[in-house]
Amino acid sequence: MSEKKKTNIILFSGDYDKAMAAYIIANGAAAYDHEVTIFHTFWGLNALRKDESIQLKKGLLEKLFGKIMPRGANKMGLSKMNYAGFGPKMIKDVIKKHNAMPLPDLIEMAQDQDVNLVACTMTMDLLGLQKEELLEEIEYAGVAAYLGDAEDGNVNLFI
Amino acid sequence: MSEKKKTNIILFSGDYDKAMAAYIIANGAAAYDHEVTIFHTFWGLNALRKDESIQLKKGLLEKLFGKIMPRGANKMGLSKMNYAGFGPKMIKDVIKKHNAMPLPDLIEMAQDQDVNLVACTMTMDLLGLQKEELLEEIEYAGVAAYLGDAEDGNVNLFI
Amino acid sequence: MSEKKKTNIILFSGDYDKAMAAYIIANGAAAYDHEVTIFHTFWGLNALRKDESIQLKKGLLEKLFGKIMPRGANKMGLSKMNYAGFGPKMIKDVIKKHNAMPLPDLIEMAQDQDVNLVACTMTMDLLGLQKEELLEEIEYAGVAAYLGDAEDGNVNLFI
Repeated sequence: MSEKKKTNIILFSGDYDKAMAAYIIANGAAAYDHEVTIFHTFWGLNALRKDESIQLKKGLLEKLFGKIMPRGANKMGLSKMNYAGFGPKMIKDVIKKHNAMPLPDLIEMAQDQDVNLVACTMTMDLLGLQKEELLEEIEYAGVAAYLGDAEDGNVNLFI
Repeated sequence: MSEKKKTNIILFSGDYDKAMAAYIIANGAAAYDHEVTIFHTFWGLNALRKDESIQLKKGLLEKLFGKIMPRGANKMGLSKMNYAGFGPKMIKDVIKKHNAMPLPDLIEMAQDQDVNLVACTMTMDLLGLQKEELLEEIEYAGVAAYLGDAEDGNVNLFI
Repeated sequence: MSEKKKTNIILFSGDYDKAMAAYIIANGAAAYDHEVTIFHTFWGLNALRKDESIQLKKGLLEKLFGKIMPRGANKMGLSKMNYAGFGPKMIKDVIKKHNAMPLPDLIEMAQDQDVNLVACTMTMDLLGLQKEELLEEIEYAGVAAYLGDAEDGNVNLFI
């Protein structure tokens, strides 16, 4: 077993700001040499979607979820003060102004730092998301894999 | 002291999807032989309400909370895309279609697996909820009991 | 290194009820002699704002965030059933009726118990919040300091 410290984050939320917090913590922990995993479940899966439309065979409900849910990190809304999309624009403006990193860059940085990005297969199935729609180099696993990591984790968070 | 690994979840949220996540993790951890506790506080208490109306003597504010809050797991809304109740219907439809378990079944499974379901007495008092309104075989405790469990916990989550 | 048990809470949420939960857990843990830290980030920073208006030189976006966001714990809304401010009033009424502590008192109690109240400097910068606007005796730190505390923590929560 690895002697590294472990950080395991469940990203349940599909909000831009909450996903930012998850990825900032993950990137920080990776920089401090933790073994880091972000387990994306439910709406958090949207952060892993590619931004282009992928044509796939789907049932009606699954098509509907695919349409309604944001396609990728850049299209996610805020948990507070979303104001029909004006809130996210404000946040992105201040991120730019203060030379902070927008969410898509934080995700790319996490991949560069070998943070394990995991998509929850059970909720992918529920929401009708398929591997073809998600970013490359993602892992696929279920709650058992999460628990295997988390039970030895130093920092476990649900976001 | 038990040598079992421990998972302690605070369920604060009254959202159907978040409660599902809590109970899926709890049931998974119980299957992996963890000692598991879900501590229900604030809106999370609604997951433990019986679905029938129970006549009890209550103050006006407490009656009002009782009316407004969902009576039981099956009546809870979604954290995202609730659409006045259409979202929960969609989720329940995909759960059925994919042979996944709806929330009331997940709660029953947790009880069968001896997951400790705890209701926070302080917030029951605040929201005017009484034992007669909650499921049978629930435990009642406060923040001290939670901390006693969590300080030796392997997986502690706030949902 | 201290032999005390450690509780580390990230308060991301700007909701009155979630902040209450954070401070109730923090005060409980402090009473049980844990070393306790609440790391306020994003909307959670609003719990640390003074309630008076402080005149400061700010950019336009930062001024706008300052206006929109609640000025201090007492002005925060609820995560559920906010009803344009009626929900918080109901909660404050039941808190009073049941002799529980409102949020500003919980924060004061935490300070009296030497809970470390930390403001996240990165998100202060993003939201344009300045030290002059926040309560006295607050610490200022970033994600590295959080991780340093949390990696040895017994109870780590994201609220």
